[in-house]
Amino acid sequence: MYNKKSKNIILDEGGGGYKSNELILDIRKIVKDTGKWKNTGDDGAVFKLPKDSRNLVFTTDAFIIDPIFFPGGDIGKIAMCGTINDIAVMGAKPIGISLSIVMEEGFSRKDFEKILKSINKVSREAGVPVVTGDTKVTEKGKIDKIEITTAGVGISQKIINNNGIKPGDYIISSGDLGEHTVALLAKRFNYQTKIKTDSKPFNKEIEKVGKYLNACKDPTRGGLAANLVEMAEKSKMKVILDEKTLPYKKEVVAVTELLGLDIFSLASEGRFITAVSPKNVEGTLKILKTFNSPVDGEAKIIGRASRPKNKKEIGVFLETELGGSRKIEISRGKLIPRIC
Amino acid sequence: MYNKKSKNIILDEGGGGYKSNELILDIRKIVKDTGKWKNTGDDGAVFKLPKDSRNLVFTTDAFIIDPIFFPGGDIGKIAMCGTINDIAVMGAKPIGISLSIVMEEGFSRKDFEKILKSINKVSREAGVPVVTGDTKVTEKGKIDKIEITTAGVGISQKIINNNGIKPGDYIISSGDLGEHTVALLAKRFNYQTKIKTDSKPFNKEIEKVGKYLNACKDPTRGGLAANLVEMAEKSKMKVILDEKTLPYKKEVVAVTELLGLDIFSLASEGRFITAVSPKNVEGTLKILKTFNSPVDGEAKIIGRASRPKNKKEIGVFLETELGGSRKIEISRGKLIPRIC
Repeated sequence: MYNKKSKNIILDEGGGGYKSNELILDIRKIVKDTGKWKNTGDDGAVFKLPKDSRNLVFTTDAFIIDPIFFPGGDIGKIAMCGTINDIAVMGAKPIGISLSIVMEEGFSRKDFEKILKSINKVSREAGVPVVTGDTKVTEKGKIDKIEITTAGVGISQKIINNNGIKPGDYIISSGDLGEHTVALLAKRFNYQTKIKTDSKPFNKEIEKVGKYLNACKDPTRGGLAANLVEMAEKSKMKVILDEKTLPYKKEVVAVTELLGLDIFSLASEGRFITAVSPKNVEGTLKILKTFNSPVDGEAKIIGRASRPKNKKEIGVFLETELGGSRKIEISRGKLIPRIC
Repeated sequence: MYNKKSKNIILDEGGGGYKSNELILDIRKIVKDTGKWKNTGDDGAVFKLPKDSRNLVFTTDAFIIDPIFFPGGDIGKIAMCGTINDIAVMGAKPIGISLSIVMEEGFSRKDFEKILKSINKVSREAGVPVVTGDTKVTEKGKIDKIEITTAGVGISQKIINNNGIKPGDYIISSGDLGEHTVALLAKRFNYQTKIKTDSKPFNKEIEKVGKYLNACKDPTRGGLAANLVEMAEKSKMKVILDEKTLPYKKEVVAVTELLGLDIFSLASEGRFITAVSPKNVEGTLKILKTFNSPVDGEAKIIGRASRPKNKKEIGVFLETELGGSRKIEISRGKLIPRIC
């Protein structure tokens, strides 16, 4: 596709003239599908709403990361997964993604194509089309390589909130956690590990089990600490995690120990944490396990919620194998290097 | 609000921990309104769709500009206007905006606050709430000051496309054009001029006249040249502009002559170009004129469409006062410095 084009992106491709139009056509050669949306090159894309549409869910994420390519993924993949998953955790069906890209002039066209292919792959896997977008090219040095912002819309009959944990609920993790951070750090610090990013779209998983979930959230930035604590605090519940069933692979534990990181703050980009009533736990786990590859780690119960006796008991507590208990806190500073 | 805070934004405020939450709360102190949306701090915002919702319109824009403050506006204002207006030109009612911000550490908190206030002002003026967002802070030098990406959703019964110009339609400009580019260039090159950006949300104008519009587009990036030519080509129409009624102020003409710019490529951020049947022209102009301040310039007829005799006649032609005619072309290179 780039036979006649310069090896690197040039400034004019973001200028609003012919070159811009050509770049957009090139993007559309790779990121093809707009699904049920009508995109006539107007200023926006149009979706004919089904008659029974009740709730519209709307979300956005910005990504400027270093490195942009890492074991198992790249900036395009996590931008897509991030937004698709944010809609999914709310119990909605993601119906369309907007893709906004800012690149510096001189950015490698080959790398750009690689990122677009990765975006298209997630779009197909998740069944969620990229329906509208914007592409800007800045002068050299105004941005570090590339920044991607995705926004997404979804529709749903019922919304799942992150404050709906009930006493007695089991806390389930859809897979092993923290691998996204470890993969990025490994690449950045040239550390040898087999760990790849856990990033993937999980909307199809939620589509199957959504009706069973009392609360749901994805442990991205801030990890299990920030996100499960938020769920527990909003639900005014006490959540006890069992050290024996923590969803972290040995290699992940090893890296965090080596680098002195807080394991509970590691981010995942393809996992969710959810609260399920006792009567639905078995059914939920059974379905989720069909989605898991050995790399993901099996969906499993990692804790249980109970009514707190007082305000101090609201939050997340780790029960250690020796019978101790400590409260898990949201990181107050920068416990891991900034990666997303 | 920033009593205990550092003068400049720090990296931890984008880290996903407590500092991030504080920053989000600070943003929400200024950008307050979420309108009819429910935002419980979940991963997305939720809107209860009216039962008669037919079409969902979805769009996005990325803004990294230099300078970020300029006569009459700033990056926040144009980000809001750009997205609100993109929805409006399609005949839809904008219902919610997502606000994604990437800043470099060390960015002035005062400037950030100024931008947020400006975002909030447009939101109130247009009656379109900011309902969801993402804020990231990068290491120094990874981004030039601040980048803002807005996405927006709108709903409508009927969609206006940019390919609907009919033979005989009058082409109307909602106000004077090109002032946005001139204001930015003046600031960048320290050139003295009274011209301010024309950026403003025009959704309320379209709400009133939408039923009369056969085609509509806002002449942002690429200006009248790129955008009216696109409308004419998609509609397969010949559009004749009259040199005597060109919607450019004297000062705008003067600056373009001085700097050797193509006046037809100047961008506006608060104007739209539309095609209206003869029977609706008077009514449309009458309504639009009620929205115009002297600064905007009155809405007026700038041209007329006719059925082309052959393919060569498809496009936009300028009839000069001396009786000549020349075809207006979309810029093939960078005719004006990159500003948005």
